[in-house]
Amino acid sequence: MKTCTFNAQAMSDDRELIFTMASNRSNSYDVYLSNKVLDPDNSLLLDVIGNRQTLLVTTPTVARIYGPSFDLLAERGRLPVKTLVLECTEQNKSLQLVGEVCRHAVLAELGRDSVIVVLGGGVCSDIVTLAASMIRRGITYVRIPTTLLGQVDASIGIKGAANFCGKKNYLGCFYPPSAVVIDPHFLKTLPNNHLCNGFAEIIKIAIACDAELFDLVANHYEAFLRTALQEPYHHARRVLWLATRRMLEELEPNLFEDKSYRRLVDLGHTFSPVIEAASGFSIHHGEAVAVDIALSASISAELDLISEADFRRIVSTIASIGLPIFSNVVTLDLCLEALNEAGRHRGGWLNLVLPIKVGEVTFLEHLEDLPEAALRASLNRLTQESHDYSGP
Amino acid sequence: MKTCTFNAQAMSDDRELIFTMASNRSNSYDVYLSNKVLDPDNSLLLDVIGNRQTLLVTTPTVARIYGPSFDLLAERGRLPVKTLVLECTEQNKSLQLVGEVCRHAVLAELGRDSVIVVLGGGVCSDIVTLAASMIRRGITYVRIPTTLLGQVDASIGIKGAANFCGKKNYLGCFYPPSAVVIDPHFLKTLPNNHLCNGFAEIIKIAIACDAELFDLVANHYEAFLRTALQEPYHHARRVLWLATRRMLEELEPNLFEDKSYRRLVDLGHTFSPVIEAASGFSIHHGEAVAVDIALSASISAELDLISEADFRRIVSTIASIGLPIFSNVVTLDLCLEALNEAGRHRGGWLNLVLPIKVGEVTFLEHLEDLPEAALRASLNRLTQESHDYSGP
Repeated sequence: MKTCTFNAQAMSDDRELIFTMASNRSNSYDVYLSNKVLDPDNSLLLDVIGNRQTLLVTTPTVARIYGPSFDLLAERGRLPVKTLVLECTEQNKSLQLVGEVCRHAVLAELGRDSVIVVLGGGVCSDIVTLAASMIRRGITYVRIPTTLLGQVDASIGIKGAANFCGKKNYLGCFYPPSAVVIDPHFLKTLPNNHLCNGFAEIIKIAIACDAELFDLVANHYEAFLRTALQEPYHHARRVLWLATRRMLEELEPNLFEDKSYRRLVDLGHTFSPVIEAASGFSIHHGEAVAVDIALSASISAELDLISEADFRRIVSTIASIGLPIFSNVVTLDLCLEALNEAGRHRGGWLNLVLPIKVGEVTFLEHLEDLPEAALRASLNRLTQESHDYSGP
Repeated sequence: MKTCTFNAQAMSDDRELIFTMASNRSNSYDVYLSNKVLDPDNSLLLDVIGNRQTLLVTTPTVARIYGPSFDLLAERGRLPVKTLVLECTEQNKSLQLVGEVCRHAVLAELGRDSVIVVLGGGVCSDIVTLAASMIRRGITYVRIPTTLLGQVDASIGIKGAANFCGKKNYLGCFYPPSAVVIDPHFLKTLPNNHLCNGFAEIIKIAIACDAELFDLVANHYEAFLRTALQEPYHHARRVLWLATRRMLEELEPNLFEDKSYRRLVDLGHTFSPVIEAASGFSIHHGEAVAVDIALSASISAELDLISEADFRRIVSTIASIGLPIFSNVVTLDLCLEALNEAGRHRGGWLNLVLPIKVGEVTFLEHLEDLPEAALRASLNRLTQESHDYSGP
């Protein structure tokens, strides 16, 4: 495990380097933690883009709040920018939407040395990544995630995706960005439920490999939720740093997922794709991940892999943040469908990630290792727990 | 330059290895020259596929002629196969057609360890490659090109593509196959004009880097055309071997086109994409490449870069094969559009590939190096030449 020294690599007032990801073919990309990256005095973005022809892809709400700042910054830097505002939801996260980004790349006459900047949440990032990977067989793009989920998970790796034929992220790519800029300032305008959804991924990586991160969230969640992860300043910044850094460390050795189908970061991502799809994507990704983690912990408890105390800590922390631990769409049949689909997606291995304590997980390699009776009992227990948390 | 020993790596009766392409991330793929790969006694294909769930994607004509053989082979090898017959033309080489392949991957319940076999021409190969790169973020695929153009060019590299917004191959990917099988047997049922189109790419690679290959074509084209490149046996096989091998050697050091925008194999591929698009894709890729090569040679002659004798050899050989050296869609404006588009596609460099003799080319790096008057004169000369070749 690499050592992780908080804030050790601060580079200047407007940026610190979280990580340099060694991606493919002797390339790498930097993930920065910045502060007010769209402020006219912050030069990070102009440094990253250079003087290249730029297509900004963003979403309606982000465009309304941050569009003028971006335009001002671009104007000061004499950056040639065209803007595409795209309604991006899980429901329309399709190949057609990818085509829409590509169509605007044609209209903007982007060359192979142009750049696309994606300023938005995880869905927008996924769609633009897939588009950028295809346009002229791959052009440069920069990610500025504006949601917590994007900042700690969806936007720091190299994946792009679209939903297809009712299957979550069935089509996609591995295509590294040229840089990622994480700016906690954006979280101030994030709706509360989006903030909660981001915490699902933070809890995931914490349970998978960082007990300190879990403790920080469990001890300070009230302040974090009240201040949109701005206060207490040092703790909030450390949560963002640790969550991002840990995720990147986990991704790096298997960035293209061609080395192994055993991934710690698949915790919460076996049942969740099917839960999302079964709800017609009305259940948000973060909520589905939360339910999946709770179900995985319940399976661990049923199989005597985790202590009762740690099971309770996990479930109660999820619930305290305002995330669900169960949903009515989760049936035994749906779980079995999810397990089979995971097998198809992981080269024939189930590799269900199960917590054994806070900060450590194990893998259930084969479907046969999970008796249907145990799965049924786990579901029943979770139904009961969810009644307890939802009150009378 | 690597040495190229014909037939030195024969492995068994049913295959010889042309090349092992070192692709990405410590992977490689083999390009085989086989004979009657669909014969029940030929084990190459079953060796390559293994016992994996398979989706065969092919085209109507190929399915009619070779479908039963494939089915028989699959049956003998107990290979679980589903088949998709797809009408593939330049006109419908679209993102929608890519989606059609993906839809059938869902229906066939392909897993990450399944395989797609593409049995068809260059368009089918391009479409399936792009689909395979996206399905579950990339599944295995095997290419069996059935056209000469596919065998010597489109199907041996790692590119996939779709046309988009009237732009040739605007969307695409670099995604290596797990194997390529070249079988001259398929050429026997190829329509004559398709055979000619394949020769355009052979002439391209010959002019770019192999005078011996050019001589073989120039000396034996009549027999090659009459026998669908079956006879004279040794010469025909050597043409297929050399063309494929030379192309692969040129591709390897810059397989992902991220090392350089100077590519010998771009000869014939600066004007041709725009010629194809301007004709509504009624001019075939091979024909457009032929016109492009002739125009490039004419520009070389105008700029005194090539001898009159070599210019005449190039143009007369193209014409002898039955390929066009000019088209009425080629106007000065269209050429300028092509040069600008090439610049956008090659990172700001024009890098127009110009023959300086048979077997050697040079690059015109900047648009400014090509005076409009010289381009105009080259076009005029070629118009005149084409009248001479088309007779009274």
